[in-house]
Amino acid sequence: MRDADGSLIDDDKSVWFQGRATWMLATLYNTVEQKPEWLEGARLGYDFLSQKCFDSDGRMFFHMTRDGQPIRKRRYFFSDTFAVIAYAAYAKASGSPEVAEQARELFGKCIHYAAHPEIFPPKGTSVRPAKGLGIPMIMLNTAREVMNTIGDPRCQGVIDNCIEEIRKYFVKDDIRCVMEQVAPDGSIIDHVDGRTLNPGHAIEGAWFILNEAKLKGNDPELIDLGCRMLDYMWERGWDQEHGGILYFRDVYDKPVQEYWQDMKFWWPHNETIIATLLAFVLTGNEKYAKWHKMVHEYSYSHFHDKEHGEWFGYLHRDGTPAQSAKGNLYKGPFHLLRQEWYCMQLLQEKG
Amino acid sequence: MRDADGSLIDDDKSVWFQGRATWMLATLYNTVEQKPEWLEGARLGYDFLSQKCFDSDGRMFFHMTRDGQPIRKRRYFFSDTFAVIAYAAYAKASGSPEVAEQARELFGKCIHYAAHPEIFPPKGTSVRPAKGLGIPMIMLNTAREVMNTIGDPRCQGVIDNCIEEIRKYFVKDDIRCVMEQVAPDGSIIDHVDGRTLNPGHAIEGAWFILNEAKLKGNDPELIDLGCRMLDYMWERGWDQEHGGILYFRDVYDKPVQEYWQDMKFWWPHNETIIATLLAFVLTGNEKYAKWHKMVHEYSYSHFHDKEHGEWFGYLHRDGTPAQSAKGNLYKGPFHLLRQEWYCMQLLQEKG
Repeated sequence: MRDADGSLIDDDKSVWFQGRATWMLATLYNTVEQKPEWLEGARLGYDFLSQKCFDSDGRMFFHMTRDGQPIRKRRYFFSDTFAVIAYAAYAKASGSPEVAEQARELFGKCIHYAAHPEIFPPKGTSVRPAKGLGIPMIMLNTAREVMNTIGDPRCQGVIDNCIEEIRKYFVKDDIRCVMEQVAPDGSIIDHVDGRTLNPGHAIEGAWFILNEAKLKGNDPELIDLGCRMLDYMWERGWDQEHGGILYFRDVYDKPVQEYWQDMKFWWPHNETIIATLLAFVLTGNEKYAKWHKMVHEYSYSHFHDKEHGEWFGYLHRDGTPAQSAKGNLYKGPFHLLRQEWYCMQLLQEKG
Repeated sequence: MRDADGSLIDDDKSVWFQGRATWMLATLYNTVEQKPEWLEGARLGYDFLSQKCFDSDGRMFFHMTRDGQPIRKRRYFFSDTFAVIAYAAYAKASGSPEVAEQARELFGKCIHYAAHPEIFPPKGTSVRPAKGLGIPMIMLNTAREVMNTIGDPRCQGVIDNCIEEIRKYFVKDDIRCVMEQVAPDGSIIDHVDGRTLNPGHAIEGAWFILNEAKLKGNDPELIDLGCRMLDYMWERGWDQEHGGILYFRDVYDKPVQEYWQDMKFWWPHNETIIATLLAFVLTGNEKYAKWHKMVHEYSYSHFHDKEHGEWFGYLHRDGTPAQSAKGNLYKGPFHLLRQEWYCMQLLQEKG
């Protein structure tokens, strides 16, 4: 965790970021340039993950001390999915069949977790069951990264199922919306939590699907699905008054319970920069070029720290920074780097 | 949960607010005027709490449907402590020895929970143990309310122990600070969570202690302790730039991880209005009268909704409202009403 100038705020470690940073370094090595320091960084991440971050039940922790003692485990398996993509990318970078096998084994566990949410200690009772957009999104991304690196026969099936799950249950064409959670049958849960939308997250899901469209030779149905998701959530998320993507919205425009709902977080902007560029490349629709310029200009004029580099994480609705930290348990070397890497590759492909 | 104009946002019920609202109505009946509608409101709250809000293990839920089905239980016992003060006040208002007995039984459970935190599912591992200011504060307030209504031989011991716990472990005179959490031996945990201060909460603790000082015939040691706590956290919490009490601060002025740390919440202002008035009444120090005027003027000019009444809950740092809702699972008829009731009583006593 680091302040604006890079000084250390806290030496604790986030398991998410061990996985995400390892993935990023190995991916740069695999796709951009074989720099030894990137491979070495990925190796250090892999070592810490594999030696320190697993509990005795095979699940991963969330928050560690610097030397690898566990502080907290959570009732989600995102740590585990980020370790899968880290292992898979590092297996490719290092050429290690053992690491590839470990990636496959952990990927299998994640497939099992996603199909059996009852494994995890429940947050609520069984009175009002719900399912979230996060699970099919993270599994789609995890399977895609495994497929891109070490390959696995399960990947395409996971990808297809996740897209179908999102299309069938979460995308609501009648009200032009992507829900963040729904009842098991896909109906809207008309209470505060059920109505809460996360436009930046849904837009991230939109580009995951547009990316699949591109890899399937510009599949028109997937392009249409991804663009609808982007359109709906740009309409709901873009702040007409101050610019930028609002963090939460209510599906019926009622007040959102989370008090910080109108803040601007860095990562929805990274995801929207990718989604709008990719939508423009795939469709040629000038609307997406215009949106891309709007979100790119907003982001680099508000989040970018011109003095010390990198981005601030959290702005007030009016665009002023809410604090100076560059990194914490939730913000690390991932969304901004992935945006720059993905957009660079996309623009290079197009020449 | 209600919007600015009182329209219903959600018909779910918060167990905290069943207890707090029942306590408030019964307390108004006991101390201000014996209005039948206040007693009837308290009875409805008592009925819902006792009939619907207990799990089979004897602990209370946190979040219910309108008709009393449980949505969520949490790993804290604040629902239970608010039910204790609700039962105790309603027992006095209704003259029911049965309700008084139920209040005593639940009070005993809370004393047990406070002494045995290992009963609850842990949020983290045992690597970095911590204890929070919240437990001695809530138990101090609970014991005080039981003592004021139905009386109980355990109350004075609980009150004395809680004050000693706060004084010994949480108040740091050398750095002029009240910690929100500490290691079991009272040392500061030099990581993000351990460094995070909640000035409004510590100021609430300050007036709980000043209130004990008043009830002990203006005990000088307790007045000194409460005023030190208020002084330290006013210095750290008052926003010199925009006015109002900042929500979180870092003990060493580093960035706080919570992104909404510089927002202004309604309740720290209610607590600071009480604390500054009480400190002025007990000491005659003009500084406290000045602070009282500052926080009172800030609050009534920024939180108060002049169109529909009541207060908004959440302001941006610059004082503009972040949303319109008047009530949600965390904001209900408690802090503002308690402030008006407590200050009215205090000023009436003084003539």
